Amino acid sequence: MQEWQLSIEDVADPVPKAGQVLTKVLACGICGSDLHMLRHGAEQFRLADELRSEAPPDPLQPVLFSPDRPTIMGHEFCCEVIDLGPGCSNLRVGDIVVSMPVAFDESGLHGIGYSNDYAGGYAELLVLNELLAIKVPSGLTAGIAALTEPFAVGVHAVVKSRIGSGESAIVLGLGPVGLAVVAELKRRGIGPIVAADFSAKRRQLGESMGADVVVDPRELTAIEAWRKADGIRSLVIFEAVGVPGMIDQAMRMAPKNARILVVGACMQADSLYPMIGITKEINIQFVFGYAPEEFSSSLEAIAEGDVDLSPWLTGTVSIDGVPQAFADLANPEQHAKILVVP
Amino acid sequence: MQEWQLSIEDVADPVPKAGQVLTKVLACGICGSDLHMLRHGAEQFRLADELRSEAPPDPLQPVLFSPDRPTIMGHEFCCEVIDLGPGCSNLRVGDIVVSMPVAFDESGLHGIGYSNDYAGGYAELLVLNELLAIKVPSGLTAGIAALTEPFAVGVHAVVKSRIGSGESAIVLGLGPVGLAVVAELKRRGIGPIVAADFSAKRRQLGESMGADVVVDPRELTAIEAWRKADGIRSLVIFEAVGVPGMIDQAMRMAPKNARILVVGACMQADSLYPMIGITKEINIQFVFGYAPEEFSSSLEAIAEGDVDLSPWLTGTVSIDGVPQAFADLANPEQHAKILVVP
Repeated sequence: MQEWQLSIEDVADPVPKAGQVLTKVLACGICGSDLHMLRHGAEQFRLADELRSEAPPDPLQPVLFSPDRPTIMGHEFCCEVIDLGPGCSNLRVGDIVVSMPVAFDESGLHGIGYSNDYAGGYAELLVLNELLAIKVPSGLTAGIAALTEPFAVGVHAVVKSRIGSGESAIVLGLGPVGLAVVAELKRRGIGPIVAADFSAKRRQLGESMGADVVVDPRELTAIEAWRKADGIRSLVIFEAVGVPGMIDQAMRMAPKNARILVVGACMQADSLYPMIGITKEINIQFVFGYAPEEFSSSLEAIAEGDVDLSPWLTGTVSIDGVPQAFADLANPEQHAKILVVP
Repeated sequence: MQEWQLSIEDVADPVPKAGQVLTKVLACGICGSDLHMLRHGAEQFRLADELRSEAPPDPLQPVLFSPDRPTIMGHEFCCEVIDLGPGCSNLRVGDIVVSMPVAFDESGLHGIGYSNDYAGGYAELLVLNELLAIKVPSGLTAGIAALTEPFAVGVHAVVKSRIGSGESAIVLGLGPVGLAVVAELKRRGIGPIVAADFSAKRRQLGESMGADVVVDPRELTAIEAWRKADGIRSLVIFEAVGVPGMIDQAMRMAPKNARILVVGACMQADSLYPMIGITKEINIQFVFGYAPEEFSSSLEAIAEGDVDLSPWLTGTVSIDGVPQAFADLANPEQHAKILVVP
């Protein structure tokens, strides 16, 4: 399987079309999906090609980017508006905004950060659709506002889990997605929240997000910790690691009737035992992204201080530092979220 | 992996304990699970041992039978009461009954048909708990009444799917479980029901159960047939084949937000691509067995003529004929459900 390469290039300034604004990136978080994509992108494309050949075209799917042409990644950004395209009426130059990483024009939808046509947030300049841009409330730094996107992923997973009061949760993996899930569970008053990660640094971040119990799976498994802390309430397991074998692990630990939310984006083939799922009547809900209202309510929760995500920010690099930052993120003791600040 | 062996043996007559009745088997259906168990039982036991070592004991789980001691299989039976144990008060000698394949005594729960202590329905005599035995309404033959159990599996799967009016269904595989799902979907007025099976005989049975469209997947895939027949309603896919690769197939064909019900009991390891589930936000619900009220309402539906399962009955054998019947069931053109009639 072919690995892709990162490089730093000069590109032409993008030009906003009707209804779009030109923005300057103030901060963009580096997402684990980008690390996965760099390593497993070729396999993803092969799979996407297979699926597309079997299904009718979906005009509401983002235009697929070609792996043979350059792509500027980065989809967790906070920007400052520096120019308005034709027909813009709500935003002004100088406004600070975040946006779902989606752009649209006459050719369809484009995934910002996974597009050949729209630059992502590891660039200096971005084009956004005015309709999707949300003004960042004053008082919020660009770095914190840029966490809206990864926090929204956690909010969406918790919404899809339909977890309610009287239920309990295990969160496997305390990267940004797992941390977002913990923070959102805590905000909803769910407990106990048991979280597991091999990294001491990340377990400490998990506690700061509101996990009631954090464990190093080498010392105590998440399910043993849950049995000690609770063991009675109905259980939702959030799989936020995203490597092969994790779904099987979650299924093995699950009590009867447990729900498993697959939030971690495992980009390789994975294996499991259906009979484990059958005898325990497990439910597996795969989740992806968020709805527009979840994105905007995530920004609101951050702005109103309902969640404090500042502990996530463990480093800042310039655009030139992105390749090194990708390498550094492999060490969970060092980093949770690195911001690119052009 | 070691395969198990079928043999015909003389065993001592069972003796009912307090609250139990001795019954004579009138008819017992041969279930695909028994065929699977004969072939993959050793692997199942290894897996069950692993899981048990990781989990606390569950007193409400049936006592696990030992693969090193004989087991009389058969869990789809209709019997006639021939003797009453101490303390029985509701049943009389001569009553015709069905029962969930579970027995209980001072040692715990036992799975009838998967137990070293309680004979299953491929025997002449069975012990049942009076509390679980349900009288068969007069007018129903023993062979049809014995279909209560496999029909209840389909009823349960449909209940767990939460499928509602305005939704549509694909049923993959038209063995007895798939046929039961089709019959129950039809009874609830769900449509269109698209069903797929390689066997012409089984497709014809699927139509007789109420499938709106039946397809041979070699000619037209289930999802293509669904797109032609509907393609708009939200979709629930019932996987009732139970061999490796089927969950992956269901995930690949699934439209966004589809629900997959895994009813087919695949007893081997299986593989899938989590990213397919993630990008389509698929929900997978594994299902097993039925609740007591689903079992009794299944008998009621059959007795009241809400469903006509008589086309399922494609053959009858004596106990001596069970080994040959297991072999014959490999040919889907010949058989759906073979009854053992001692």
